Amino acid sequence: MVQDLNMIRVAIIGGSSYTGAESIEILLRHPQAKLTYLTAQSDCGHAADVFPQLRGRLDMMLEPLDIDKLASLADVALCCLPHKISMNTVPKMLAAGLKVVDFSADYRIKDAAVYEKYYEPHTDKQNLAHAVYGLPELFREQIVGAKLVANPGCFPTGASLALAPLLKHGIVKTGGIIVNSVTGVSGGGKNPTPNFHFPYMNENIYPYGVGVHRHGPEIEQVASMVAGKPVELLFQPHVGPFDRGILTTTYSDPTGSITSEQVMKLYQDFYKGERFVQVVSKPPAVKHVAKSNYCHIFPTVVKGKVVVFSAIDNLVKGASGQAVQNMNLICGLPETMGLE
Amino acid sequence: MVQDLNMIRVAIIGGSSYTGAESIEILLRHPQAKLTYLTAQSDCGHAADVFPQLRGRLDMMLEPLDIDKLASLADVALCCLPHKISMNTVPKMLAAGLKVVDFSADYRIKDAAVYEKYYEPHTDKQNLAHAVYGLPELFREQIVGAKLVANPGCFPTGASLALAPLLKHGIVKTGGIIVNSVTGVSGGGKNPTPNFHFPYMNENIYPYGVGVHRHGPEIEQVASMVAGKPVELLFQPHVGPFDRGILTTTYSDPTGSITSEQVMKLYQDFYKGERFVQVVSKPPAVKHVAKSNYCHIFPTVVKGKVVVFSAIDNLVKGASGQAVQNMNLICGLPETMGLE
Amino acid sequence: MVQDLNMIRVAIIGGSSYTGAESIEILLRHPQAKLTYLTAQSDCGHAADVFPQLRGRLDMMLEPLDIDKLASLADVALCCLPHKISMNTVPKMLAAGLKVVDFSADYRIKDAAVYEKYYEPHTDKQNLAHAVYGLPELFREQIVGAKLVANPGCFPTGASLALAPLLKHGIVKTGGIIVNSVTGVSGGGKNPTPNFHFPYMNENIYPYGVGVHRHGPEIEQVASMVAGKPVELLFQPHVGPFDRGILTTTYSDPTGSITSEQVMKLYQDFYKGERFVQVVSKPPAVKHVAKSNYCHIFPTVVKGKVVVFSAIDNLVKGASGQAVQNMNLICGLPETMGLE
Amino acid sequence: MVQDLNMIRVAIIGGSSYTGAESIEILLRHPQAKLTYLTAQSDCGHAADVFPQLRGRLDMMLEPLDIDKLASLADVALCCLPHKISMNTVPKMLAAGLKVVDFSADYRIKDAAVYEKYYEPHTDKQNLAHAVYGLPELFREQIVGAKLVANPGCFPTGASLALAPLLKHGIVKTGGIIVNSVTGVSGGGKNPTPNFHFPYMNENIYPYGVGVHRHGPEIEQVASMVAGKPVELLFQPHVGPFDRGILTTTYSDPTGSITSEQVMKLYQDFYKGERFVQVVSKPPAVKHVAKSNYCHIFPTVVKGKVVVFSAIDNLVKGASGQAVQNMNLICGLPETMGLE
Repeated sequence: MVQDLNMIRVAIIGGSSYTGAESIEILLRHPQAKLTYLTAQSDCGHAADVFPQLRGRLDMMLEPLDIDKLASLADVALCCLPHKISMNTVPKMLAAGLKVVDFSADYRIKDAAVYEKYYEPHTDKQNLAHAVYGLPELFREQIVGAKLVANPGCFPTGASLALAPLLKHGIVKTGGIIVNSVTGVSGGGKNPTPNFHFPYMNENIYPYGVGVHRHGPEIEQVASMVAGKPVELLFQPHVGPFDRGILTTTYSDPTGSITSEQVMKLYQDFYKGERFVQVVSKPPAVKHVAKSNYCHIFPTVVKGKVVVFSAIDNLVKGASGQAVQNMNLICGLPETMGLE
Repeated sequence: MVQDLNMIRVAIIGGSSYTGAESIEILLRHPQAKLTYLTAQSDCGHAADVFPQLRGRLDMMLEPLDIDKLASLADVALCCLPHKISMNTVPKMLAAGLKVVDFSADYRIKDAAVYEKYYEPHTDKQNLAHAVYGLPELFREQIVGAKLVANPGCFPTGASLALAPLLKHGIVKTGGIIVNSVTGVSGGGKNPTPNFHFPYMNENIYPYGVGVHRHGPEIEQVASMVAGKPVELLFQPHVGPFDRGILTTTYSDPTGSITSEQVMKLYQDFYKGERFVQVVSKPPAVKHVAKSNYCHIFPTVVKGKVVVFSAIDNLVKGASGQAVQNMNLICGLPETMGLE
Repeated sequence: MVQDLNMIRVAIIGGSSYTGAESIEILLRHPQAKLTYLTAQSDCGHAADVFPQLRGRLDMMLEPLDIDKLASLADVALCCLPHKISMNTVPKMLAAGLKVVDFSADYRIKDAAVYEKYYEPHTDKQNLAHAVYGLPELFREQIVGAKLVANPGCFPTGASLALAPLLKHGIVKTGGIIVNSVTGVSGGGKNPTPNFHFPYMNENIYPYGVGVHRHGPEIEQVASMVAGKPVELLFQPHVGPFDRGILTTTYSDPTGSITSEQVMKLYQDFYKGERFVQVVSKPPAVKHVAKSNYCHIFPTVVKGKVVVFSAIDNLVKGASGQAVQNMNLICGLPETMGLE
Repeated sequence: MVQDLNMIRVAIIGGSSYTGAESIEILLRHPQAKLTYLTAQSDCGHAADVFPQLRGRLDMMLEPLDIDKLASLADVALCCLPHKISMNTVPKMLAAGLKVVDFSADYRIKDAAVYEKYYEPHTDKQNLAHAVYGLPELFREQIVGAKLVANPGCFPTGASLALAPLLKHGIVKTGGIIVNSVTGVSGGGKNPTPNFHFPYMNENIYPYGVGVHRHGPEIEQVASMVAGKPVELLFQPHVGPFDRGILTTTYSDPTGSITSEQVMKLYQDFYKGERFVQVVSKPPAVKHVAKSNYCHIFPTVVKGKVVVFSAIDNLVKGASGQAVQNMNLICGLPETMGLE
């Protein structure tokens, strides 16, 4: 396959993370993008030493970030840095002329006060103002043409896609919504901790972040944007003994009477033509979307509540796949390229 | 350790099932109970051939059920038969003079019409009428002195213990309650099926029984008994890639204002003195109760909802351990014997 | 990406198996191959109903095999049928003019007497005579130009690649070789059985096929072909609680003195230029080759024995990936196409 | 159950480790032993805070070790400290009059030079001289009456029990023996590391300690003691994605001709009367011995080699269970007490 001379040149910043590794995997298969620069804060060295699965497949170094080098080598950066570090770095990349898809939370929460309650003092409100929330199925028009895309959190992706049709059409009340999720352990990142140590995590499942998880306000923000008015919801994550995937179960109260058939039809219409969101006729399973950019959604009505299940791969549609989808959009490539 | 001459003689009926095996394990450690008779429908033969983990530990045969033999050998039967078969067998055991703890659903649902909607035509309404629901922490007084105990379902055990204090004291509304559970795979039994085939189930999690799971009405029945009025709730089970355990997350709406501290105090008081229900100060994990008869419960208030988490081992507190707890009660032994 | 008018048209026969599903996944990413026909013995219907992970990605039916339809639609068939059924079907496909890569054991064992000892009476000795054993790194020249390729077994792939350099160069004795392997559970196929039921298989590992596993003689055949004289080895498989991957550990006795450095150099030279065989500098892990067509090999000398470790994905390099590699070779495409 | 006035008073030193936790679990069920003192280096505090599974079951503190307090409270110490720290502490405990079962490697290797090659300079050769290697099935007579027992390593337990009958009776050559083992992850201890981080370890299996694992010389020492002459063997460990258990596969060359039936008979005779070693008629599985002190062994002959499989729980027969077995022996209690 002859490579296009007009290949997009892509840098991955923070490439030694799980989302960095997943981004590399996806870009290796992308026909119009070329990896040109990989950086890491720690774990520098040959990519195949950091990630043995790349042996023989990628002959590049992970090196400390140099903005000038970045500017000379890349058109777009996938920034996999953690929050706080991201908002210290992104302004420099933008100033150097790159387009940026940022994986951290730093540009997701539009209300800096909300951000600061859950994270840190915000040090880049200027770019926050024009950053676009990168959930293409809901905000595609804003993403095209953006210079800075805030790639959504993993939980917010699964939850927002599950709830959007209901909220957009006013089918359910905007209060009292419950979002109950179970994530695989890779969502916790690469750093070993007692809670994710194999002998503790295997044969286990437990809730965490009770009442305080940072993705709660992000989900509320998206839900409110879609509903056009404030939405209040309760988000409760759990972690289970698998590597990848998020299963989300949402419970909400309909504003009027509605049947399972009606809600199914609503979802089919809402997501018609969306490649990566599949409204399925049976409850989803995370294994059905593993290693893919797809989200499977099954909506129904049970005992007077609207119950919607969604399944995604937290590292793909919940992170790197969606980032490439956003990258495609802001670079003028077909949205699904490299992701099918 | 010299054995008491007045050891209780126990039969396990349907001993080749997972609950049968777990019952055997528990009774092997019970200081006042002696296994005297093991039966199986299929998988007859030496116990150590059916369950290699019993090699060198139990020299007994699993044999087809003979009621006369049962009557001559045992004082009490743990009946691990599936529903329908159970209600065909239990009357004979009772008629032969045995006390019975039955693991099936056949004697759990007091309203035969509800039972028949979810299961089969009920063929033993006579014994159904005097069967006692065997959740000792809630119905201890009725259990002592019973001849037939309906051992609770695994999900209903975790859900009922999580919700009882709220409902008993009218803290939450009796409608709109959500019970979201994730069970380990052993809850699906010993029979291999595509859904529980390792390459499908591993690295997977999915909902099932959407809107139709048989444990829903059982949970509602217990909740209503505790509340003293009809309770309506939505029960949604999921299955995850682990052998044992059920994590239940309940969401309900308080009738008045209540704080996390108040709800915690309520639970501590309600379960004060209960050995097997531990109100914990952090969210529970199923690994903390694996292979034990304990239930860990953590209640709190999040965004105006009362959220309660409970964790049990589905095969112990959710089945065989609770059955032995019930056996102890109906046989006049200390309730916790053999279970600590 | 414009599709070549001369795309290879590929049929998958027995497409509802795990190897069928994996073949579909690989071919969906193959730039010069087009899936034109899918058959199944059972589990017919829309591909996305049989494999929910294909929802939105493949709009084809799995249908019963019709040889005439096959002949009109495809140039090459990947035949994922089980042994015996395969040798009843392959002759018809060859007669209809197709090239065939066969996944079963039916055309792997050159000595029909050996085959018949481990399998069935052989009913297609004619095609057996000209079938080529499809391990490209060892037998590439014979594969190019073949009409019928016998795709190697999963264990034989990992074992043969681990042992070949030693045997080719007479570094180790041709007797007393031990091949100790651990496979993931998908190697056992899609059919649910008690041994692979999740609650039995999880948290478990056990040997099987002691002294009788059918892959033993296949490994010996390849080893003997490479060595140029009869090789006798002991193959012992085990199965562990993971979906995918085979880790093989071989132990053999050197004919003369040799160091770890020398054996490492030997392997690096032997596999120089081979894309899919990577000689690594640290012991391999099956996760490093999951979902890829790569084999990682680490050779060393310990206490006077040559110890070689290899890791493959049993469904990719051990089945469908290698089949596509063979398909590329017999169809005149670049060998690595669609597999990187 | 009334407690015997002559209960053995037991201290667990280093109680916050996995082996400490397992020792606590076993002793809670022991009818003649009473936990009187728990110490920890870090993770001090209430036992139920360190190990939530002990909530409601053990009301004791884990506290820093005080030798005087230990001497006043306990008759025997299970010392779960790591090597080096153990040999600094054990002399003080012995001097204070306690009997000690030590879990570390410090008193296992009789030849201090070998110890020092794999570990540290040995600082307590005096006690090393009279320490007894605590594998009761092989060295019971020496253990009874010992003051200091070196509890065997987990791999050496499984390997030694697998090989002992062959070596004792000169059935196999004393050179060229291969010991291939796969352990569960708890064998690596409680400290989180990248190699045992869930997203790395799950769906994975890999070799480690190639040529340098410290249990190699320990296995050789035991094998040589049993054989009565030097034995040389190659020990290769692997780690797989399960919590508990070690499956060991040994390969050795018979000195003369021997059949599977003969070797089976040899093992049955050798282990006749041993409660915890079961010679089984089918290959073992680690799940069959999980959470038990049993070792399942299956010996056979394949292609001229004697192949022996053994399965143990690395934390029970491979650590804490065997320690209690040793404790029983040195304290004059029935050997199997608390372990059945």
